[in-house]
Amino acid sequence: MPTTDEIEAKIIQQADIVKKAKQAKMSKEELEPLIQTLLSLKAQLKDEQAKVKPFDRAALEALLTKRFFYAPSFQIYGGIAGLYDYGPPGCAVQTNILNLWRQHFVLEEDMLEVECTNLTPEAVFQASGHVEKFADYKVTDSVTGDIYRADHLVKEVLGKRLEEDRNLKLGLQSDAKKPKGQKPAEPLTEETKAHYEMVLETLDNYQGESLVKLFKDLDIRAPTGNPVTEPVLFNLMFDTQIGPTGQFQGYLRPETAQGHFLNFKKLLESNNEQMPFASASIGKSFRNEISPRQGLLRVREFTMAEIEHYVHPDRKNHDRFDEVENLELPLYSAAAQLAAEGPKMTKIGEAVKNRTVNNETLGYFMARIYLFLIRIGIDADRIRFRQHMANELAHYSSDCWDADIKSSYGWIECVGCADRSAYDLSAHTKKTGEKLIARDTLPEPIVTTKLALEIQKSKFGPVFKKDAKTVQEALLSMEEAEIKEFELKLKDGKASITAADGKSYEITSEMVTIGMKTETINVLEYVPNVIEPSFGIGRIVYSLLEHSYYVREEDEQRGVLKFKPAIAPTKALVIPISNNADFAPHIKSLVQKLRQANVSNKVDNSSSAIGRRYARNDEIGTPFAITIDFQTLKDDTVTLRERDTTKQFRATKDQVVEAIKDLVDEKVEWDALIKKYGEFVGQDA
Amino acid sequence: MPTTDEIEAKIIQQADIVKKAKQAKMSKEELEPLIQTLLSLKAQLKDEQAKVKPFDRAALEALLTKRFFYAPSFQIYGGIAGLYDYGPPGCAVQTNILNLWRQHFVLEEDMLEVECTNLTPEAVFQASGHVEKFADYKVTDSVTGDIYRADHLVKEVLGKRLEEDRNLKLGLQSDAKKPKGQKPAEPLTEETKAHYEMVLETLDNYQGESLVKLFKDLDIRAPTGNPVTEPVLFNLMFDTQIGPTGQFQGYLRPETAQGHFLNFKKLLESNNEQMPFASASIGKSFRNEISPRQGLLRVREFTMAEIEHYVHPDRKNHDRFDEVENLELPLYSAAAQLAAEGPKMTKIGEAVKNRTVNNETLGYFMARIYLFLIRIGIDADRIRFRQHMANELAHYSSDCWDADIKSSYGWIECVGCADRSAYDLSAHTKKTGEKLIARDTLPEPIVTTKLALEIQKSKFGPVFKKDAKTVQEALLSMEEAEIKEFELKLKDGKASITAADGKSYEITSEMVTIGMKTETINVLEYVPNVIEPSFGIGRIVYSLLEHSYYVREEDEQRGVLKFKPAIAPTKALVIPISNNADFAPHIKSLVQKLRQANVSNKVDNSSSAIGRRYARNDEIGTPFAITIDFQTLKDDTVTLRERDTTKQFRATKDQVVEAIKDLVDEKVEWDALIKKYGEFVGQDA
Repeated sequence: MPTTDEIEAKIIQQADIVKKAKQAKMSKEELEPLIQTLLSLKAQLKDEQAKVKPFDRAALEALLTKRFFYAPSFQIYGGIAGLYDYGPPGCAVQTNILNLWRQHFVLEEDMLEVECTNLTPEAVFQASGHVEKFADYKVTDSVTGDIYRADHLVKEVLGKRLEEDRNLKLGLQSDAKKPKGQKPAEPLTEETKAHYEMVLETLDNYQGESLVKLFKDLDIRAPTGNPVTEPVLFNLMFDTQIGPTGQFQGYLRPETAQGHFLNFKKLLESNNEQMPFASASIGKSFRNEISPRQGLLRVREFTMAEIEHYVHPDRKNHDRFDEVENLELPLYSAAAQLAAEGPKMTKIGEAVKNRTVNNETLGYFMARIYLFLIRIGIDADRIRFRQHMANELAHYSSDCWDADIKSSYGWIECVGCADRSAYDLSAHTKKTGEKLIARDTLPEPIVTTKLALEIQKSKFGPVFKKDAKTVQEALLSMEEAEIKEFELKLKDGKASITAADGKSYEITSEMVTIGMKTETINVLEYVPNVIEPSFGIGRIVYSLLEHSYYVREEDEQRGVLKFKPAIAPTKALVIPISNNADFAPHIKSLVQKLRQANVSNKVDNSSSAIGRRYARNDEIGTPFAITIDFQTLKDDTVTLRERDTTKQFRATKDQVVEAIKDLVDEKVEWDALIKKYGEFVGQDA
Repeated sequence: MPTTDEIEAKIIQQADIVKKAKQAKMSKEELEPLIQTLLSLKAQLKDEQAKVKPFDRAALEALLTKRFFYAPSFQIYGGIAGLYDYGPPGCAVQTNILNLWRQHFVLEEDMLEVECTNLTPEAVFQASGHVEKFADYKVTDSVTGDIYRADHLVKEVLGKRLEEDRNLKLGLQSDAKKPKGQKPAEPLTEETKAHYEMVLETLDNYQGESLVKLFKDLDIRAPTGNPVTEPVLFNLMFDTQIGPTGQFQGYLRPETAQGHFLNFKKLLESNNEQMPFASASIGKSFRNEISPRQGLLRVREFTMAEIEHYVHPDRKNHDRFDEVENLELPLYSAAAQLAAEGPKMTKIGEAVKNRTVNNETLGYFMARIYLFLIRIGIDADRIRFRQHMANELAHYSSDCWDADIKSSYGWIECVGCADRSAYDLSAHTKKTGEKLIARDTLPEPIVTTKLALEIQKSKFGPVFKKDAKTVQEALLSMEEAEIKEFELKLKDGKASITAADGKSYEITSEMVTIGMKTETINVLEYVPNVIEPSFGIGRIVYSLLEHSYYVREEDEQRGVLKFKPAIAPTKALVIPISNNADFAPHIKSLVQKLRQANVSNKVDNSSSAIGRRYARNDEIGTPFAITIDFQTLKDDTVTLRERDTTKQFRATKDQVVEAIKDLVDEKVEWDALIKKYGEFVGQDA
């Protein structure tokens, strides 16, 4: 079957044929079959569109709100855009993801975890470039005063114009509301349409004057239809004053990375001076987004998990690359994007070999990120690795691949995997004078002999006094060729040199010694490069919620979150089959056993029907339910039910607790347990 | 043996006797034995002081810095007071404490965990009282501009004066440096001394004018000797602007509690409207301390773990109190503090019964806090529960017991356990109109009959027009007695009422109906009270580091941190006995097994002597070391060594990995394993 996109393309083609036929004043008989084709294509499109059942985001959101996965912060005070609180199930899902993250990365790779402060003095972000460059353009509605992020507004306005045009050409009604005072829609010329599409593709290229011009040229207005002010830069960092003087400017960090870098020297020491190695950190970051939206996907305060892996700039191979080289990843390279080809499953080993992916370390982490996302329950078919185009790279980044996850909001960047090169370590070294470097011990020392100049300090000070240091610096900064020239001049006993202060100083031959000097280098210093996998936890949590959601076939009202056991907020529901008092000691002993095994559980001894109690736990994704029934009173056995298959088996309490523990730890599969204990069919019906 | 305190008291007494004897012009023969007694007392004091080996904080700090447990943030930028980063071992200790906290409290008590934002709009802290009251007094050195916290400065200055006085009376040299320009020390009169001591005891009582007067009266100066400015209030919250307008004032939260309270309604729903229940949260808080000091003990950004337990104001009993009632806690009640009696081991059941501790819920949490602190490794003998005196209670608190932990800095409040009453929920209800309440379903409905007034709206609107609402409100706010009086007046057909706008309105009898009305109440609404255990994690971490530190008897240079296995950053050190290549596959398989069991480990295959490798791991508190030796090559067994006993046993790799896992999970004791496998004596020697 053709896709809706393909049918749409055919409709536009056919409409063009019909139009030209009409212009050519064809006969009715000749026209009719052409029109018939067009109409049947339109009918076909309608049918196809009806078939594709869109994801019911509203139903999921209703469930998430009802069970308090998360909610806008300060809701009783009217809320604040871009700030969300996690309720109990959301909080538990996040904690479980972070625990797996620590296992999968920190423990597995012996990373050095750090926790650095959110409050950061201005000097740090001056050095890192954030004070100057961590900003977005904003525009203001000249009547209402509402503020918009400039690039988002361009996207929205041009997107609407293109959609309207498409609808016009398909002969459909437009869904997009028309801003007041705008002329009735007319089809765009091919030229305009191509220009709009080009602008949207290269939006990141418009900065400063060119962005101002773009707004004017395309008459970009606020959704109200009002004109907007010229785009101006707005720094996205929250600022505050540290200390009681009110004069010490600080910021809330917009990423955790700088804290790692500032501690680089201590971390390298902690690692016994061994390279390469990685630091890791989980913490909050803060970005004062101009107009936050899309729920958890664009917020002002969020949890990040960041890894900074330090390597030699010329040796970006990775010791454990052989473990992943045959893994196929959905790579969407910059070249493929330019050619509009879409992502392609590619062995990471090959992608590194043909340099699509720059180096083994970058490739290794992309593979590990992919495995992690799948491990926590993200749908593998809705992940892609998209390479940044040159114009969208962050100011510190030399190459970057985003792990995008697809949800009802489209493809969203959830993990960035960037090569930050030596940018940050160099910047902080420059600003503080503290060398953030690593050392290579050479297998054989490098011996060099070259002409060198030495200073006779005793003859120096008395002559130049307070200028002595300046003059010395000028002399010592000469290259070999300059020294040679200087030596020639000195033959006459005197030579002059211009120092950094612009003044000329006269040097006599007794002040300096010039001769061949042999140097032996045993150790080479270098500034490590940094490969940075950076995880936006809130975005991953939201994507996981969408990918986990389904409704029971037998009852569309029953939403289920099919979390993996390791991710589920509550692992086990404990339910007595009735409120018979004899069940109470069994509930107590079972809960005690579960707690001892560190298995989170909830008892539901309400009087609701058992199906209702299952349904309540489907909504928070509880994978297992233990039922205490009359058989329990006889032989101390209980039944264990799995959420998605709804199958059960019967075993002793201890066996069931151990089974759950093993399922959560991914040591055993459900099917194997059903095979072991035999399926139980009974009390549910 | 008498304590140093007791000897000091005797010296002062004896010095007084000698002084009076001299004034009485006693003979040399009479004086001599008196002076002899004084001198021998002084010698005794010196001996005793030499015996008490003070805690070597400098040695511990050197170890903590060397191994990067924590360090001042932004050190390469000169650092910022009150901000610290955690390095890998510090980070791991904190994570392990928090994991146990979740197990001990959240999982065990089925608490509802939430994660709320750090950024908070001003309105929230206006309601909670923090904008007005969360402040300390500061003073400024009038010459240097240095800023001091007023109460700390008073404490320091008076403390020094009292110490000097004590030294003068003991005839010792003062250690305290004298500020320049101060007169040579003279002994204080008994009156002055008593006054200073009184001021120090009641320092929290000095606020506003009385604090200003105190500074003047006692001539409190900066450590430089310069006068200081008058004390002024300084709010301790960091402020920032939220959003792009620059006009939306926000703060960084100084406690996590308000986030819980704002979500109270959703949390109660999540708990199926069942009371009592608790919410819990782990997160950062921020306080812009005037002059942070004492390392991790007073910082500007710190991790808190807070529980808010919601109860009916008249039913503060606790379901599980019987589990702890016989536990003895070191209670230091307000009464005992007034009587200077010191803490006393008291059964918490008795303390609640005799109302020393206000209620069961407060007592239950104090017991659970005590058990938690001991569980993570805090020395039980260095914990006390100190009740707040009336003058030091926070503005929202009606009763509070602090779990203080003793370290080389003295007794430090590490956990607060406060009864915040209905303060916060009421405040937010008042400010937002959103009812933050719980409901009691009455076993039998309450039926009341009373005189009531109803309004005939149709007759009302046309007469009063826009004032109608104001007049109605005035009428409906009348108490029963007022209605009776009003009914009497209306007998004449007319009566007037004064409304909230101050105006008088004339009411006719057809506008209202007055008569007896029966009301049935099935549900009673109430504002829950909140019991709040609040943990300062950084302070606990630091206390634990001190309590865990010791030096090996055989070598004072070897510092050890005797962390419990569950707390230790690294659980197992893996060491091959030599760098024989045959050991490599054994190291690999062992590390794999440890990782699969989620046991953090480090391999040390350096060429250092085995003792040196143990010592390095003593410093980060690694409890177990696995040695691979030549026996391993024959039968695949390894040895396991415990840090503090230095005993070992020999077993297979799998047995050893399981043993470590069980030791970390506190399922088995080391001694039992030695008994099981037999002590191994060999390769270490």
